[in-house]
Order: sequence, then structure tokens, then C-alpha cells
Amino acid sequence: MVEKPAVRPGGRSARVQRAVHEAVITLDKEVPRDRLSVPLIAERAGVTPSTIYRRWGNLKELLADVAAERLQPDTPVADTGSLEGDLIAWAGEYMEEMTSTPGQQMLADTLGSTSLEQRQRCLQAQRHQLQLILSRAEARGETPLPTVERLLDGVMAPLTYRLSYAPQSLSKDNLAQWIAATLR
Amino acid sequence: MVEKPAVRPGGRSARVQRAVHEAVITLDKEVPRDRLSVPLIAERAGVTPSTIYRRWGNLKELLADVAAERLQPDTPVADTGSLEGDLIAWAGEYMEEMTSTPGQQMLADTLGSTSLEQRQRCLQAQRHQLQLILSRAEARGETPLPTVERLLDGVMAPLTYRLSYAPQSLSKDNLAQWIAATLR
Repeated sequence: MVEKPAVRPGGRSARVQRAVHEAVITLDKEVPRDRLSVPLIAERAGVTPSTIYRRWGNLKELLADVAAERLQPDTPVADTGSLEGDLIAWAGEYMEEMTSTPGQQMLADTLGSTSLEQRQRCLQAQRHQLQLILSRAEARGETPLPTVERLLDGVMAPLTYRLSYAPQSLSKDNLAQWIAATLR
Repeated sequence: MVEKPAVRPGGRSARVQRAVHEAVITLDKEVPRDRLSVPLIAERAGVTPSTIYRRWGNLKELLADVAAERLQPDTPVADTGSLEGDLIAWAGEYMEEMTSTPGQQMLADTLGSTSLEQRQRCLQAQRHQLQLILSRAEARGETPLPTVERLLDGVMAPLTYRLSYAPQSLSKDNLAQWIAATLR
């Protein structure tokens, strides 16, 4: 992102963003990746290419923005009654989504962004979800509780590393072991 | 990579690859990322753009190939006399390189590749280096030794996760703690 004006929901800027994001998502299903281009997306969204260049800089950063947006959780974290169960449920769902073909593309688009700020949106979402899970465990009286950073390094890090480099090596067993070792 | 013929060292194909890689590396220092294009690289390398499209598919995959090549280690792993020392030295050097501006760009180029095969070259290099370090520890009679997979999940995964999402949060202390916890 080169320059991103503050977005007022329903304002002109938010409407442009929504139209462009929707055009990317639809075109990504219709044309091969190599054919996706700023002029094509602009035409579909009904904006000029220069609107896209001004706001996102280039195609890669636009794709990273769309991916980071889609990586934001849209469902509440399931309450399974225990910290370990909540982590298995939440991280298991993330693993399942991210080993799919669109999930793999979303992860590559996000991690491929030159903008650290863009990549960090993914970390912030994971931190936020883990904080919710930990608060719930605290309210249940579970103890001792790990820190969020410990869960990131012990669970989300090996999960993300294998999602990028070796998704076929992942299983629910790996995940359960990382979670158990981190909570121990 | 769409189609990559087997490369015979010194053959025509290897010469084209070297010329194109060198053009990317030089141009990447001269022009902003947004200005890098296949025609520009082709002109500098003295090949036609279609040579590049045929061999690499598109600009993003060419950049990923160059980055994966540069991520291959070019120096032997230092022998410090102990497994823990070797890991701290080797991973510490990697951390230092990858937090630099060109290192951050290389990591984003590699992880942003749509091709899993391309991304995996990075994992293979890390596995190979860790295997060398472990063989040396075995020859010294150190015991018990962790598996390579355990070192990947316990050390390289949190290191890579933080390199992508929060390089400013990394320190030699983090790294020493991950290594100590994994060897424990």
C-alpha cells in the first residue's frame, strides 16, 4: 500500500475499496493468475487503473491487501469448554482452510507483500483470536496459562512454517502435539 | 516456474539462467521494485522477453527463483565445538541476513511464490544444513540428539514466523531460548 486514506464506512473510499476487492475475488476464480492485471480489475470494478495504482501501488500489493482482508476471521471462536480444546478447534479450522488451494494462494499473497504493515495484519488477527481464547480460559479459572507470544511461537509458528513450505506434512496430530507441548 | 529444462552446467540453458539472474540482481539495486519488469530484465540480460515468460512464467516466479537461489547457503557452517553453539552461530547468521532490507525482500519473494516446489527449496536448504550440524554433533558423541523435524518446528519455524510478521521483535536472546528449549 502506497497511500491508503482513512476509510469511513459507506464513504466513497470504502465503496471503491469494496468494488476493487470484489473484482479481484471474482476475477481470481475466472482467469488464471498470470492473466490478472490492474487494467482488467479496474474495468471490472468500474474504476480507472490510476485509482488502483494510487491506492495500492501495484498488483502484488493489491492482492496482498485482499488476502489479508480475507484472512481476518469471520466466525467467533468455538467454546469447547477448555483452553486445549479451543486451541485445537480454532487452529484446526485455520489449518484446514489454509491447506486448500485458495488458502495457499492467500497465504502466499500475504507473505509475499513487500509491506511489513500488510503482512502484520495477519499476525494481529492471530494475536487477537488467541487473546480471546486465553481470556475465556482465565474466566473458567484454568491455570497456569501460557502467554500469547508463547502460543504464537509454539503453535502458530510451526503451523505457518509448514503451511508455506510443506503443507502435505501437516496433520491434526502435529497440531495436537504442538498445542500439548506448549501448554505443558 | 512453468517449464524448466534440466540445466547442464555451462550449457545454453545454464548461461541464459545466469544472465537473467544477474540482470535481476543488478536491476533490483538500480530501480524501485514497481519499475522492475520482464522487458527491462530481458533487455539487460540480452534475451527476449518470451525466453523469460517461457522459462519462468511471470515476473513473480522469476523473482522467487532468484531469491530461492540466493537463499542457498554459500559458506560452510561454523564448527563451534558443540551442537548448541553451532545452532546459535548458524541460525544467528541467518537471522541477521534475513532482517536486512534485501533479506526481507528475498523472504517475501520466496514465500510469495505460487509454486510450492519453489518455496520448498528454502526448506530443503535448511534441512540440509541442520543435518550437517547434527552429523557433526553425533561424531562428537553428543547425546541425546533432536531430530531435524524437531529443530525445524522448534527453532526455524518461530524464527521464520517472526522474520515475516515481526522482524523487530527478534533478538539473539529469543533465538538462544528457542534453541535451549528444543534441545532440552
